[in-house]
Amino acid sequence: MSKLDFSIIKTKWNSRAWVITLNWVKLNTPVFMPVWTKATIKWIILDLLKNKDFLWTENPINLILANTFHLYLRPWDEIVKNAGWLNKFENRDKLILTDSWGFQVFSLWEGNKTKSLVKLQQDWVWFQSPIDGSKHFFSPEKVVDIQLNLGSDIMMVLDVCSSIENISKEKVAQQMQTTHSWAKKAFDYFGEKYDSTKSVLFPIVQWWIHKDLREESVSFLKQYAIDWIAIWWLSVWETNEEMYDILDFLSDKLPANKPRYLMWVGTIKDIREAVMHGIDMFDCVLPTRLGRHGTAFYKDWYVKLKNSQYKNDFSPLTDDCPCFVCKNYTKSYLSHLVRENEMLGWMLLSYHNIVYLHNYVEKLRKEILES
Amino acid sequence: MSKLDFSIIKTKWNSRAWVITLNWVKLNTPVFMPVWTKATIKWIILDLLKNKDFLWTENPINLILANTFHLYLRPWDEIVKNAGWLNKFENRDKLILTDSWGFQVFSLWEGNKTKSLVKLQQDWVWFQSPIDGSKHFFSPEKVVDIQLNLGSDIMMVLDVCSSIENISKEKVAQQMQTTHSWAKKAFDYFGEKYDSTKSVLFPIVQWWIHKDLREESVSFLKQYAIDWIAIWWLSVWETNEEMYDILDFLSDKLPANKPRYLMWVGTIKDIREAVMHGIDMFDCVLPTRLGRHGTAFYKDWYVKLKNSQYKNDFSPLTDDCPCFVCKNYTKSYLSHLVRENEMLGWMLLSYHNIVYLHNYVEKLRKEILES
Repeated sequence: MSKLDFSIIKTKWNSRAWVITLNWVKLNTPVFMPVWTKATIKWIILDLLKNKDFLWTENPINLILANTFHLYLRPWDEIVKNAGWLNKFENRDKLILTDSWGFQVFSLWEGNKTKSLVKLQQDWVWFQSPIDGSKHFFSPEKVVDIQLNLGSDIMMVLDVCSSIENISKEKVAQQMQTTHSWAKKAFDYFGEKYDSTKSVLFPIVQWWIHKDLREESVSFLKQYAIDWIAIWWLSVWETNEEMYDILDFLSDKLPANKPRYLMWVGTIKDIREAVMHGIDMFDCVLPTRLGRHGTAFYKDWYVKLKNSQYKNDFSPLTDDCPCFVCKNYTKSYLSHLVRENEMLGWMLLSYHNIVYLHNYVEKLRKEILES
Repeated sequence: MSKLDFSIIKTKWNSRAWVITLNWVKLNTPVFMPVWTKATIKWIILDLLKNKDFLWTENPINLILANTFHLYLRPWDEIVKNAGWLNKFENRDKLILTDSWGFQVFSLWEGNKTKSLVKLQQDWVWFQSPIDGSKHFFSPEKVVDIQLNLGSDIMMVLDVCSSIENISKEKVAQQMQTTHSWAKKAFDYFGEKYDSTKSVLFPIVQWWIHKDLREESVSFLKQYAIDWIAIWWLSVWETNEEMYDILDFLSDKLPANKPRYLMWVGTIKDIREAVMHGIDMFDCVLPTRLGRHGTAFYKDWYVKLKNSQYKNDFSPLTDDCPCFVCKNYTKSYLSHLVRENEMLGWMLLSYHNIVYLHNYVEKLRKEILES
């Protein structure tokens, strides 16, 4: 039985508007999740996201994403558990999704061509900490336990993220089998705990632009889409067209009555396309990454505050955003802060970008509801 | 006639509690000014200092300090003027003090032993921009004009800051004469504009631990203490005892009925001593500088959040501060942020430190009032 209480309010072509309840928190979808890697969204005082003077919409941000790998290494999931779970650790309520560890394995692999920091085995993966060289291993079961220690509402299974370079398709297919066996282990292990926790666990459909592997993966993993299903290994190196093509391909293969989470998608254009292809949830570091490079979302494009034209531009950052930053500051002031490498500039732009994406997704939802 | 409307509410020994009104803003003294060098307090969204959910006391922060030299170079005082003055530029109301340019001359001098970036003349000072090497000159009159462009409420005169190493006392005395002649020029020039601006101008008493020069300087400059008088070239390299000794020495020489601003003082201990010596106003970068090194004010000492003892410490940052940070976060979480170099940690600690000093000065005021 699903822990998510959800109903599809309205569909428009393939797009869907849901109301989901998990742990007494209501989520409207489509929904965008800000990323909160190390128990903080970069540059942002989380209370601003719920404070009425800084709030910009009727629907606050109820779901953010934290990173299991980083929080396991530092501060250590046991400390977070002792603090009373992540929400209490960092003074927040509402929902938390923790991603699994798959991509970090891949990063250590890719980043260290000469010295292997990672050993992948059938039942577990061994790795050296990039911080202090200490040795650790993760299994599908252990990653569930870590996420339970963090007090995650929505957990992700451990998966293998194949390299896309210098790897045969046979090898990729083999890694898919490992991922599937890990998913089985994770769900078998979590199944025993399911009723005694507040958490849900998502399987992850991967395998890049290989349609046959995608299909096989959906076919195997949909048995585990008890609450939700996630899609990944898109929006990494493939072209936009390849991504939309895969989303189109998957559209009628994914369970229709389960929410769908497309990982790592965060541009206005990609979100719009993905919603049109039936995706319900997104996450991306783009709002804060752009913010700390002095760039703001505006319609389909970007305002680069370092451009000299903004030095004397006393108009608001955008003309279509009701956020605290657009209401109170001029491009001239923001440009000055960014040029001076003043953190306040990066903070304000990150804040605007998060609000902007949040509101954009809300707007898409309204379009579905009003269609 | 003074533009400041002020009254001494109470004195206790040499300590004074005033209520000052300037440009319709009420200031209670003693008062601590956060520093706002480049039109932002480092890491702080200024609106937090007036937002009721983030506010911590009945008396908000009504006065902050910005830097004339930095804002002249970037974004350029003409841009700030076009924006509608500093307050409008950065979305703030209340009072702004702009310091003069003296210390920046000194910094360029000291920082460039081999290549002189500064030429000091009788009537003006020439310098090369440390940013792009462009050439500029400042005169006492020009520095008044720049501060007027910035929309400063409280302006400071241009002064010479002598080196304290490898310099004869004769040379220092000569530089004092230059400073005095600059003060005369600045006040003569500003005198003609006085009635048509909102601004006031302060003279600065300098000259380190040379009591004879201090006395001569007060004796000359007090004619210009129309509204207020500032004291500097203490709290730089002298010992605490030397500073208190000079404050003691100056105590009965400064005009009794004018507020006194001791520049660059910002530790709990120094503020307490200075208030006991009759000082009314302070500024310092210490709260934000400590904050971004992971250190918080607490009573007479400091909490260094990087210390490993705080990893598992789930108690509040302090037990005597009602600020947003102390109310909402544990030392464990703050320690995690600081260890991870997450900006949020530096922001939160800077915020606490500003509030802590502000409240400490308020407490001193209450002690004077209740004595």
